[in-house]
Amino acid sequence: MNKKIRFGLIGCSKRGTGLLTGVLIPMLEENILLCATCDKYIDRAENAAEAVEKAGYPKPFVTADYKELIAKGNLDAVIISSSWETHVEIATAFMRAGIPVGLEVGGAYSLNDCWKLVNTYEETGTHCMLLENCCYGKRELMLLNMVRSGILGEIVHCAGGYQHDLRSEITGGPETKHYRFLNYLNRNCENYPTHELGPIAKLLNINNGNRLVSLASFASSSRGLNEYIQKNLKSDDRLADLEFAQGDIVTTVIKCAKGQTIQLTLDTTLPRSYSRGFTVRGTAGSYFEDTDSFFFDGEHDKFEFNGRGLWGNAAEYEEKHLHKLWRNFDPKGGHDGMDWMVLHAFFDAVEKKAKPPIDVYDTVTYMCISALSEESIALGGQPVAIPDFTQGKWYRRTDLCETEYALDQKQPFNEIF
Amino acid sequence: MNKKIRFGLIGCSKRGTGLLTGVLIPMLEENILLCATCDKYIDRAENAAEAVEKAGYPKPFVTADYKELIAKGNLDAVIISSSWETHVEIATAFMRAGIPVGLEVGGAYSLNDCWKLVNTYEETGTHCMLLENCCYGKRELMLLNMVRSGILGEIVHCAGGYQHDLRSEITGGPETKHYRFLNYLNRNCENYPTHELGPIAKLLNINNGNRLVSLASFASSSRGLNEYIQKNLKSDDRLADLEFAQGDIVTTVIKCAKGQTIQLTLDTTLPRSYSRGFTVRGTAGSYFEDTDSFFFDGEHDKFEFNGRGLWGNAAEYEEKHLHKLWRNFDPKGGHDGMDWMVLHAFFDAVEKKAKPPIDVYDTVTYMCISALSEESIALGGQPVAIPDFTQGKWYRRTDLCETEYALDQKQPFNEIF
Repeated sequence: MNKKIRFGLIGCSKRGTGLLTGVLIPMLEENILLCATCDKYIDRAENAAEAVEKAGYPKPFVTADYKELIAKGNLDAVIISSSWETHVEIATAFMRAGIPVGLEVGGAYSLNDCWKLVNTYEETGTHCMLLENCCYGKRELMLLNMVRSGILGEIVHCAGGYQHDLRSEITGGPETKHYRFLNYLNRNCENYPTHELGPIAKLLNINNGNRLVSLASFASSSRGLNEYIQKNLKSDDRLADLEFAQGDIVTTVIKCAKGQTIQLTLDTTLPRSYSRGFTVRGTAGSYFEDTDSFFFDGEHDKFEFNGRGLWGNAAEYEEKHLHKLWRNFDPKGGHDGMDWMVLHAFFDAVEKKAKPPIDVYDTVTYMCISALSEESIALGGQPVAIPDFTQGKWYRRTDLCETEYALDQKQPFNEIF
Repeated sequence: MNKKIRFGLIGCSKRGTGLLTGVLIPMLEENILLCATCDKYIDRAENAAEAVEKAGYPKPFVTADYKELIAKGNLDAVIISSSWETHVEIATAFMRAGIPVGLEVGGAYSLNDCWKLVNTYEETGTHCMLLENCCYGKRELMLLNMVRSGILGEIVHCAGGYQHDLRSEITGGPETKHYRFLNYLNRNCENYPTHELGPIAKLLNINNGNRLVSLASFASSSRGLNEYIQKNLKSDDRLADLEFAQGDIVTTVIKCAKGQTIQLTLDTTLPRSYSRGFTVRGTAGSYFEDTDSFFFDGEHDKFEFNGRGLWGNAAEYEEKHLHKLWRNFDPKGGHDGMDWMVLHAFFDAVEKKAKPPIDVYDTVTYMCISALSEESIALGGQPVAIPDFTQGKWYRRTDLCETEYALDQKQPFNEIF
């Protein structure tokens, strides 16, 4: 690597700090240089900068105002891990300044925000990549590999969920400054769709020969948070009497142009074990994350699960089907190595001034689900249309297709999808 | 038992024969007498009658015309296990003759059919019980028990599916006389909702303080059957060029009056392991059939499944929470003893001239899902209203409530729900 990529980190709360200590600081010995940290709560930005210094690197510039970073004009890239509702304003500001954006995940609040990202990209040519780490998960990439090999036959249905008990995190209360809290208080929607949708969209070739056409969402009643608060907090707590808008379970069904259905579940306020419930159903075989199992036509017996015969058999398929990225690299850091993977993919694209593997069209296609599910729920489950953000380019996107299957050993990160 | 219950069996195909040999013939030494067998294909009725005779009981009367059985006027009850589309005509005919009906499961083709059953019951007072065996499943009744004990907290969401690879059965072809074939060829809907919905409806007190309010359904493309036919049948087969209307995966979401959501999946034409995917989500705990596991708040760790820690732990809860029916009886015969259970429940109600535990309102509430899902899919996933078949009685059904929680040891079968 000849020249270091100079980048800034916007948003130094739990997620920003997790990226920093888990992956970014170790990566500083590679080809990147963290020049600036920024958070509206300046103490967080300061702590982040000090952590960099303590690791033996130059202390980054610290600010509470992201516009200062644009004004300084010395960044090659920016990573945005601030609160969901600030993502689009900050991302478009950097894109207009010609600085490529790595955008942490989060749902959109309106279609307008999604179009802003698309329009800004099309006007400036500056890329925006959703840092959807789950697109790089070990199983997710293994399934991508297997789907492309044809071993599962034609894929007709996928499912996934953000099934993660967040009651403790959400009800840490306003004093924790956690943006999730106000979302749960005020909105009722699939507020966090990208972890499960990203990998599914990649294997269904969404925006590249296929597209999401419509969705409908349905919310259960909201009971989990209130009961949790009653059980765990003091009776004089100011959270005790709050009514949360967010239903405990939100079920969303998406229809694709090529006939597939995708079922998403948001499930964050009831007791349960963590699972993204990644499910891939083909005419020749299926994968079920909940049991980490494959079922192949003609190979397995349909009553074999009864005796737990298949539970956990996916590990046996790794030797043959593990994705090249997971063979060539041994990722360290947060979320089982997925953070390492997605950040390398981002900086790889920045260095090569290439279209990132999750481009602006993918980014908004995944993010828009939140805004649209909110509309569908408000309309009693009415299906709503998902815009074609590519504006007709999805059925023949040659910029993507050219690199789609050409997994270059030297450039593995930005050309795999 | 003083007097034998004289009953007839209408429909002696695979299901009727399964009931006969698995449960009904062994029950003939108890309080029932099979007087007549009937099938439009007379050879089937004859075979069934001969099986009874071979078992050492008087040979039943054999006919191809169910109206003959009504004309003879000597039956106390009838079991209908004919093709789905004949259920309502035959059931209402017997009800009008004052003969209580045990109706095998199957979805409705129209709301009109559902109302016919309700109106016939209300005009005649003759009961009709859906023989939904899964309401009597070991796990399903255990969950009913646990939900009523409060150990799972408030239930906010349930899910279930008919997830059973039927490709071989369906494509046996028209020569097998299998009614499923024509359904898959011509309809696109949740064609078999009652196995999963029945037990869920019972634990959510549907028609007894709660009710199903609306649903929306979404179908994937139809690929499984065609690919199966291409792979398995001769190229000159007359099935080879058929186009099936039925989508491979149908996802349905139901909303309840008390805020719960129910997600149903029809999944019968792709390779997979059998599962009814029974899932119960409460504010204090959850059950997941796919891993046969419970997760209790404060007791289990949310990342414990990762190491397969919880897979299969449900068996550990049986000692404490098994339903009384499963403690008191050791059911033999088809479908893991569920057929034995449901038939005993039916004949118990007939003998006592009591309202059956799955009454006509429950019957049509479960059956109507097929007709309504067909409408919703035809309308692109538009939500459709589920009628209140009780006509306002659901929020205060005292006939049900009186016996609801009074599990009488002497009358265990017809008073448990």
